[in-house]
Parts: sequence; structure tokens; C-alpha cells
Amino acid sequence: MIILGIDPGSRRIGYGLIEKTGQKFTFIDAGLLKIKSKDDIGAICEIRDGLKTIIKKFKPDICAIEKLYFVKNQTTGIAVGQARGVILLTLADAGLSIKEFTPNEIKSRVTGYGLADKKSVEKMTGLILQEKSLKLIDDAWDALAIALSYGLEIKK
Amino acid sequence: MIILGIDPGSRRIGYGLIEKTGQKFTFIDAGLLKIKSKDDIGAICEIRDGLKTIIKKFKPDICAIEKLYFVKNQTTGIAVGQARGVILLTLADAGLSIKEFTPNEIKSRVTGYGLADKKSVEKMTGLILQEKSLKLIDDAWDALAIALSYGLEIKK
Repeated sequence: MIILGIDPGSRRIGYGLIEKTGQKFTFIDAGLLKIKSKDDIGAICEIRDGLKTIIKKFKPDICAIEKLYFVKNQTTGIAVGQARGVILLTLADAGLSIKEFTPNEIKSRVTGYGLADKKSVEKMTGLILQEKSLKLIDDAWDALAIALSYGLEIKK
Repeated sequence: MIILGIDPGSRRIGYGLIEKTGQKFTFIDAGLLKIKSKDDIGAICEIRDGLKTIIKKFKPDICAIEKLYFVKNQTTGIAVGQARGVILLTLADAGLSIKEFTPNEIKSRVTGYGLADKKSVEKMTGLILQEKSLKLIDDAWDALAIALSYGLEIKK
């Protein structure tokens, strides 16, 4: 089973793909969609097209995305929400089942501690995926941790 | 030319449709999409399906939507942004050209005054559409004013 994890943002969207086989997890791919368009409509189409390419290439079975309650300022909140709406609709339109996880749920599932720092989450994600020497940017690590949160709660 | 105006919100989405023939505007329809689902994915699908039904029924040529910079609190900002992202993607996927207007631009175009109050905008919208006795809720009036903002700037 292939799981796609998404770390949503308005200009930077992290994605990570893992495979679960029995109780074993394998790293497939991870990276960042960087949105270049300055206008809303252009940005929306970039997000949709970028995600569609990832879905077409890796054919995930299910998808996990971070649930947001709070961002630094109002304008950012609207922009991040807007990008998140586009991401969710693109995933839903692709027929993927989607599950949302709060930051604390992600930390708790991956490290066992809901208030773990970024470095611990990254380290544990690498350990579980048996990819200790993997070099990735933060957004991609976050996306892998999100995918793993879903994978760890699936029993089969 | 049929113009669809959208007043975006997370739980209430106003819509209004007008026709422009030469320099004359005619009211077609206006109303409210009320979103019932409590969960993100359900709400997103409701917004998409509701909008698709409106587009299919009235076949608008172009579309105008309010641009948001500020909402009362962080959580609302994310929720409204998310709904707005879904609306924009649904409109773009339907092949509609979309133009965004700030609240001040809408007020200014419809009443000639960028700081006009809600009642003045409503009154002028009714006058321009020659529908003085029309009874509508605020969200629908707002959506008609948004559609009119686009209509008034088109020369032909």
C-alpha cells in the first residue's frame, strides 16, 4: 500500500511517499512543490498540476495531510487555507481517501511524544523508514512523517 | 454574457447571476449555498458539487469573486481560505475566466464610493438591475454586487 503525505503551505508544499508492506515501511520519494505564480489563479493551477503529476507517477492508495488550526498572521491564514482547499479537492477528485492529522498527532504517532521537536520527528521518521542517511529538506521530512502517521495506524 | 458572482465563506457561499446585454444588466438568479458537513472533506465536496450544479444550470461565461485579506480570527481565516481555494479550483476546472475584486473595489464600482455601507451597495445593486422589490439575503446581494463589479468594467 502506497501512502502519500502532504505538508500544506501556500508557497511550499512538502510531499512524501512511503510503501507499507505488512509491518514494514519503505521510502519511495519525497520533495517540495514550490509555487511560483504571484496571482491566486496561477498558484491554484500550479498546486493542482503539481499534485496530479505526483499522483499519476506514484499512484498512492491513500493520503494523509496535516490539519491546521493556527498560523502566524491573518493574511497567511487565508493563503494557507486556500492552498489547503485546492490540495484537498485535487486529492478528493483523484479518488484518494484522505485522513487529516494535527501536528500533535503526527509527533505523537512518530515519536511517541506529542510535544516532540522537529529534529526528533525527523530522526524517528528516518529510523522507521530505515533511511538514516537520507538528505531531505524539512518540508519533505514533515510530509514523510505525516504519511507515516497514517501508515502506523493502519493495522493490516 | 452571463456573469456569476461569488461571495465566499466557509459555511455560507453567496452566488448571484446576471446577464449583460449591451449596456443593460438583467437579474437571473441569486441564492446561498449552505454547507452542512462538519468535516473538511465533506464540506469540500459539498462546495464543489453545489457550484458545479449552478454552473451547469446557468452556464456563466465569466466569474467574479471577492478577494479576502482579513477575517476576524485565525481559525476562521484558514477555514474561509480553504473554501475559497475549493471555489477557485472548481471555477478554473470549469474553464471559467475568474476575476477577483476587493471589498473596496466592489463598493466603489457599484456605488461610486469605496467605503459605502452594506445597505447602499444593496440598494444600488437593485437599482442597476432594475429589481427594486427583489427580496434576497445579504450573501446573495453581495454576490450580485460582485458580479456587477465585473460587468461594469467590461466595455463591450
